[in-house]
Amino acid sequence: MKCKKCGEKAVIKLRAHNISLCAPHFQEFFERRVSEAIKKYSLLSLHDKILVAVSGGKDSLNTWFLLKKLGYKADALHIDLGIDEYSKKSREKTEKFAHKIKGNLKIVELKEEVGFTLPHLAKREGRKACATCGLIKRYLMNREALNGSYSAIATGHNLDDETAVLLSNLLNWKMGYLGRQSPLLPSWHPKLAKKIKPLCEVTERESAAYAILNQIDYIYEDCPFSQGATTIFLKGILNQIEEKSPGTKIRFYREFQQKARSLFEEEKMSLSECPTCGLPTTHPPCAFCRLKSRLLQKEGKSK
Amino acid sequence: MKCKKCGEKAVIKLRAHNISLCAPHFQEFFERRVSEAIKKYSLLSLHDKILVAVSGGKDSLNTWFLLKKLGYKADALHIDLGIDEYSKKSREKTEKFAHKIKGNLKIVELKEEVGFTLPHLAKREGRKACATCGLIKRYLMNREALNGSYSAIATGHNLDDETAVLLSNLLNWKMGYLGRQSPLLPSWHPKLAKKIKPLCEVTERESAAYAILNQIDYIYEDCPFSQGATTIFLKGILNQIEEKSPGTKIRFYREFQQKARSLFEEEKMSLSECPTCGLPTTHPPCAFCRLKSRLLQKEGKSK
Repeated sequence: MKCKKCGEKAVIKLRAHNISLCAPHFQEFFERRVSEAIKKYSLLSLHDKILVAVSGGKDSLNTWFLLKKLGYKADALHIDLGIDEYSKKSREKTEKFAHKIKGNLKIVELKEEVGFTLPHLAKREGRKACATCGLIKRYLMNREALNGSYSAIATGHNLDDETAVLLSNLLNWKMGYLGRQSPLLPSWHPKLAKKIKPLCEVTERESAAYAILNQIDYIYEDCPFSQGATTIFLKGILNQIEEKSPGTKIRFYREFQQKARSLFEEEKMSLSECPTCGLPTTHPPCAFCRLKSRLLQKEGKSK
Repeated sequence: MKCKKCGEKAVIKLRAHNISLCAPHFQEFFERRVSEAIKKYSLLSLHDKILVAVSGGKDSLNTWFLLKKLGYKADALHIDLGIDEYSKKSREKTEKFAHKIKGNLKIVELKEEVGFTLPHLAKREGRKACATCGLIKRYLMNREALNGSYSAIATGHNLDDETAVLLSNLLNWKMGYLGRQSPLLPSWHPKLAKKIKPLCEVTERESAAYAILNQIDYIYEDCPFSQGATTIFLKGILNQIEEKSPGTKIRFYREFQQKARSLFEEEKMSLSECPTCGLPTTHPPCAFCRLKSRLLQKEGKSK
């Protein structure tokens, strides 16, 4: 297997693009795809100040690494969810990586924020644990972006994440979600930073290869609470389709953005400020403050 | 396993509907679903004169059987493609069934129409054989409907067929196809009958069970040329999704029809009459007459 660009020994075969590449040419390929996505979807300008949400996984560490490499001002936020060994390891990898690239990293601990770790919360919330965790992470990202005057929040969602969610939204015809499933969620309130997904057009496999080639030491494990999640199942389904017909994932995603997304109406919601914390919300007090007070009440009762 | 309606021994479990049913109650269920689809999608009135395209498979035979049972005027057309044993068996089953239900059946032979059987055509057309076969069948159905003054052509497409095509059209964002993927394709020229799919909301498995319970002797085999077809692959994919989350197929299809289909623009094409055969076409002479003359030319050359 030889590199299509230089004829040297290839390290990866990309069936969707019908090429094999050596390590330097694969890195070039990967970086070009990310910077082309940033340009095509107008994700960033060089004036933006970016806060990258880093979990310690390959995608978010790659995002931080690459945004800095491409010349953007990018700091990072890690949310320590308190999920036993998993969170400890995730935090360690993130801190080591920040040190290595001399990046500014802020850590926020769930336990300090709401008084509970995620496993504790999961026991109380049952099947809603993943939804609650999502709510908390979105809130903390928005708050930290506002406090640090960041204009953009970057997440590590890759093509596999995006197509799995797209397929799920189509199977259930979630019209509002389809309307706003974009690599760019513009800021629609002065207190909310825009949200961007620079890795939206590279696959999970490409992202893993890029991390390994750049000696980025990341956490391999999925969150223990995500076992059996629909998104993971649908990723497997899309991998079967990709195996049978290479290139389907990228076509499915790109053509959705180009031709179809605008057909689905975006839900426009009016925002006001939460009387408790001051952050924008559709239904004040905001979901995070409501969650916090609910948790405190429950805790009071159970004592 | 007991019937949810009467407590007798159930013969089938329908996970999508969370019920088990005995033979008579399953038949009632199946017939109600078909007649409800006919009503909901305004497929037919009792004034319609229907030509059912019957292949000899469970779905088309069920369609004919059930339309007659529901009180509609329904005759049938079988196209003998000349695919060796497969076509012989299909034709035999169709003829026996027509005799059993005392139905009017017309048989058209591909060999007589274009001078070649399908295997012969497939050798000449290569990978396009399925597309060519589709073109031929559509043409002959339209022609026979016109000649017999039928107002509707019914086909046996079931929920599995429809969702597999829907998924394929979404993966490739075929906007025009999505706009017209409907159980009802209205007549848009005086010489074209409307096309309807009465079984669109029952699954392949339900259709097989209905045929067996009604002692309808049908051909089990798929067309030998359909091996490896994308539709068959995507049916397998959707079965995996259905297994994990029962009810997905019917929801995916129904909500597409209710909420999404109208968003995709239907391709409006102007029709004129073919100077050779007189049937409506977008690009005269019609594709069928062009195919015929192409085949005749090739045959002349190869002699």
